[in-house]
Amino acid sequence: MFNRYMLELGSKRSAIRELHEFGRLRAESLGADSVFDFSIGNPSVPPPDCVRQTIKRLVSASDSVALHSYTSAQGSEEVRKTIADDIKQRFGVNMRADLIYMTCGASAALTAIINALAEEGDEFILPAPYFPEYTVYVTAAGAKHIDIPFKGNFDIDLDALEAAINKRTKAIIINSPNNPSGKVYSEDMILRLAEILERKNRELGITVYVIADEPYRELVFNGQKVPFVMNYYKNTAVCYSYSKSLSLPGERIGYIAVSPEAENADELYLAILGAGRALGFVCAPTLFQQVVAKCLDARPDLDIYRHNGKLLYDELTAAGFECAPPEGAFYLFVKAPDGNSQAMSERAKQLGILIVPGDDFAAKGYCRVAYCVDESLILRAAPLFKKLADSYK
Amino acid sequence: MFNRYMLELGSKRSAIRELHEFGRLRAESLGADSVFDFSIGNPSVPPPDCVRQTIKRLVSASDSVALHSYTSAQGSEEVRKTIADDIKQRFGVNMRADLIYMTCGASAALTAIINALAEEGDEFILPAPYFPEYTVYVTAAGAKHIDIPFKGNFDIDLDALEAAINKRTKAIIINSPNNPSGKVYSEDMILRLAEILERKNRELGITVYVIADEPYRELVFNGQKVPFVMNYYKNTAVCYSYSKSLSLPGERIGYIAVSPEAENADELYLAILGAGRALGFVCAPTLFQQVVAKCLDARPDLDIYRHNGKLLYDELTAAGFECAPPEGAFYLFVKAPDGNSQAMSERAKQLGILIVPGDDFAAKGYCRVAYCVDESLILRAAPLFKKLADSYK
Repeated sequence: MFNRYMLELGSKRSAIRELHEFGRLRAESLGADSVFDFSIGNPSVPPPDCVRQTIKRLVSASDSVALHSYTSAQGSEEVRKTIADDIKQRFGVNMRADLIYMTCGASAALTAIINALAEEGDEFILPAPYFPEYTVYVTAAGAKHIDIPFKGNFDIDLDALEAAINKRTKAIIINSPNNPSGKVYSEDMILRLAEILERKNRELGITVYVIADEPYRELVFNGQKVPFVMNYYKNTAVCYSYSKSLSLPGERIGYIAVSPEAENADELYLAILGAGRALGFVCAPTLFQQVVAKCLDARPDLDIYRHNGKLLYDELTAAGFECAPPEGAFYLFVKAPDGNSQAMSERAKQLGILIVPGDDFAAKGYCRVAYCVDESLILRAAPLFKKLADSYK
Repeated sequence: MFNRYMLELGSKRSAIRELHEFGRLRAESLGADSVFDFSIGNPSVPPPDCVRQTIKRLVSASDSVALHSYTSAQGSEEVRKTIADDIKQRFGVNMRADLIYMTCGASAALTAIINALAEEGDEFILPAPYFPEYTVYVTAAGAKHIDIPFKGNFDIDLDALEAAINKRTKAIIINSPNNPSGKVYSEDMILRLAEILERKNRELGITVYVIADEPYRELVFNGQKVPFVMNYYKNTAVCYSYSKSLSLPGERIGYIAVSPEAENADELYLAILGAGRALGFVCAPTLFQQVVAKCLDARPDLDIYRHNGKLLYDELTAAGFECAPPEGAFYLFVKAPDGNSQAMSERAKQLGILIVPGDDFAAKGYCRVAYCVDESLILRAAPLFKKLADSYK
């Protein structure tokens, strides 16, 4: 009666929603203090003041018809020019306004470019661990996702990647800083990735695109640098969101930037326009197009995330857990002592701690702990994490 | 290399974009005064003051983290409850918050419900004249659109509709007040439509849904009443947008309301949730979810549209054109004297008048004239419309 895949998608509760519901019920019966929610990737740091000031100024001073009116499908030309200039200046790429496509956040950017690229049966390579919705977007576009495992500290297993590339390979989706692992791919990793892709393109006579999903680009700590992928591999499109860098996740505002050096860059851009249209995105929300363009240099207080990450890492490792030190985003990916992440999430639940099993991120054996929370939550949860670790002894 | 359909969609300039580009060039060479743009359906009346006041208040007073944070995929529960209660009160339908799905405008509502319903090869019936993007949304969902002609004054040809229904028919998309014709379907028309659908459902053992696309619901004149379709036919979902009723087209905010009496209403809602997820809509923009819930009773000055519609209608008919009197929305659908709408749009262009040929609306022989413009534009264009009419003598 209905589309089977869509019904299945809508009916299946995600692990995160299940946890949320569990937490809600527990809070009702035992009090909010008994719930330690580390399950959600919702920024905990307020938007920089520029956001509030800009909204107020625009709403007070602008012609309200023009302010809220449609922009062109690709977004306000002035906004796109501002963003292109910013990319040019920050990353030395010769970006143009007509290669920027404003979107309703990174998810819309991903569905637009995936649908622009995918023909029935094409393959998209997803290096684990990865954001679970990638598989939904790829599947709904009629394509297949090919998962490849990680190596060591959540690096891409480049041998496995190379072996996975064939004539049907359309793109690889990378996400650095990474959700769920907090990993930032090094420049060396990106260089080697580019080398493999270029070689395979030549060998097979294909063009594999890199989709660089970068909502966490600005959330890095300790001077870590996030390589700007299109400086290393020309066939790259960046999917960006202001959800994290301006703490605006609900406002759905981001963009796709197609590398000016990409093969058939202008055609790819047109296919993105077509896909955005077919998916029902008329234009990105106009007020927030203006807001982000006026707050490009603003950042929320990232020091809070850095501090939280270190605090939580110190506590978890002191408790006896194994995990990689925080590099970026706001997640730690913690090893389940017995390798069973579902069971670890269950055990944690009994203590009131909500953490997400890595299975949906294509990384069994780990749990994701989000530290976009109040410092006090981390401090209060510390003895419980210790108890959780001890339960494995 | 790219998805062929998406590339084609992105490459093809719509008639409206072509006109816009022509207008831009003409304004550059001959001055803005020489362009009479009646091509765009962008509200010309400012949002009601409630919008500005609510934005300012929310931004000043609210916790900014909560204000801009994700809502659940279906939208803020409080907002959905407010809207459901409003529908209950205005239309006497037993609407529930968990049958309301907040969307990024009516287009997103349409793609979500079409993708929720469509299995490969299903058929969606589109009574002409209709908004051209319907065909894009239906085609991209893997379904087929079956166009049926209009009868008389842009009424649905119900005999043709009945003949078009078969086992593959999934839904019919109706749009009243109608873009491009300004038609409001009468209660009698909706009653007869419902009677046919119920009969065909029984005969064929199917369930045909009505998708009532109603962004212009509040834009009616002279006491005309827009029948609330789910009061006449239970298998109905309404796609609504605040683009016109609050003059917020760029902010992308609207909803789907599934009739509580629809067959498998809850399953349909889940399939919509799934489709929204697969299309990349994480949630509707949060600030504007709050804004519309707080401005449900506000309206822009609709009298301006009523006045413009009457003025333009009087001028066009005095000039000798044939068209139906304005009932709703902000369009007149004018008959080309020689039946050739493309040629009529071309002749108009030579005079600086931009009007859209009806071909894309599946109604050759008519041109759409949008009157969401300044009154002065209508007055200044009057002698040119006369000249256009005279050119046919």
